[in-house]
Amino acid sequence: MSIQQFSSSLLENAVNEFAKLPGIGRKTSLRLVLHLLKQTEHDVEVFGNAMIQLRKEILYCKVCHNISDTDVCRICSNHSRDHETVCVVENIKDVMSIENTQQFKGLYHVLGGIISPMDGIGPSNLEIESLVKRVTDENVKEVIMALSTTMEGDTTNFYIFRKLAPLNIKITTIARGIAIGDELEYADEVTLGRSILNRVEFTNSFK
Amino acid sequence: MSIQQFSSSLLENAVNEFAKLPGIGRKTSLRLVLHLLKQTEHDVEVFGNAMIQLRKEILYCKVCHNISDTDVCRICSNHSRDHETVCVVENIKDVMSIENTQQFKGLYHVLGGIISPMDGIGPSNLEIESLVKRVTDENVKEVIMALSTTMEGDTTNFYIFRKLAPLNIKITTIARGIAIGDELEYADEVTLGRSILNRVEFTNSFK
Repeated sequence: MSIQQFSSSLLENAVNEFAKLPGIGRKTSLRLVLHLLKQTEHDVEVFGNAMIQLRKEILYCKVCHNISDTDVCRICSNHSRDHETVCVVENIKDVMSIENTQQFKGLYHVLGGIISPMDGIGPSNLEIESLVKRVTDENVKEVIMALSTTMEGDTTNFYIFRKLAPLNIKITTIARGIAIGDELEYADEVTLGRSILNRVEFTNSFK
Repeated sequence: MSIQQFSSSLLENAVNEFAKLPGIGRKTSLRLVLHLLKQTEHDVEVFGNAMIQLRKEILYCKVCHNISDTDVCRICSNHSRDHETVCVVENIKDVMSIENTQQFKGLYHVLGGIISPMDGIGPSNLEIESLVKRVTDENVKEVIMALSTTMEGDTTNFYIFRKLAPLNIKITTIARGIAIGDELEYADEVTLGRSILNRVEFTNSFK
């Protein structure tokens, strides 16, 4: 069903706006808008203004380039975190994923993408210079590379590794291996191979 | 993944607001909010204000109770439409569905629901009195019942039929039968049975 006929241009407008969002078709859009119509005027104002305010007032942390309400984000300004360890990620979603594990207490560095010549993204488009400067100027002892295991991820890993190598710090990458709950039978060969090469002491595997 | 850790309360706010919408989980919500962040400030303002304005300024047509920008909706105030035929539907989505067929040129009457004792919805909660008044006062010659084929739909159909019967107008219901493109083999017995009872002249079936 295509939705061509609206009895109200206000409704049509709202549905068109929602349908611009990725993955929201016109039927879903209509459903969402009709839901909003059932809410109180106040609630809809809160909804609309949350988006407008976010876009207007959002800042990017000048240290790690993560999204932030202030010049320096909550994570970078938290003194109980380990400021000597920096985890390099592609985007802010990755920061959230890692934060949700509650296993990492260091800081982040958001590259804003990965090197991808096909998409015209080179090292100069990413926050790599600022990473090198940060590691040079501040007391960083370990950089953890946490990029995707794709060709582009590996290229970026290698590029950054070469830039940081002269600085004489520890550079690590997150472990690749069989996901917890996965069966060996269905794991791909490369992953299984790496998981054997990078095996850990039995007692460490429960840490 | 639950998203617990946000580096920005503005972002957290926006994600929470989006996640209140039906069928939008926290991951989808985050994806949509990050998409909005990439748009221009103007575009996000247009988006937010479309929702706020809709909720603030929306009216319901005083004739057919469809959603409208004005006291009387586009359809009811269109003089090229057939004002003698009124199609009774459950909600405004049904109006849109029928409008999209481009097969109906009459007016509508939106009940605002169907009789459903289980949900505490009785005839007095619906726009039934106003339908009876409309048919009594205006020059309506045919009322087409276009409700769902559920128990509640049938109850509502019957209730309205009894109310309208004394007014001496034509009362019809939309045809039930095998959907176009469906195979007989997979049709349910009740529908197939009705489609045989309510068969139409061969030449009419192409109209």
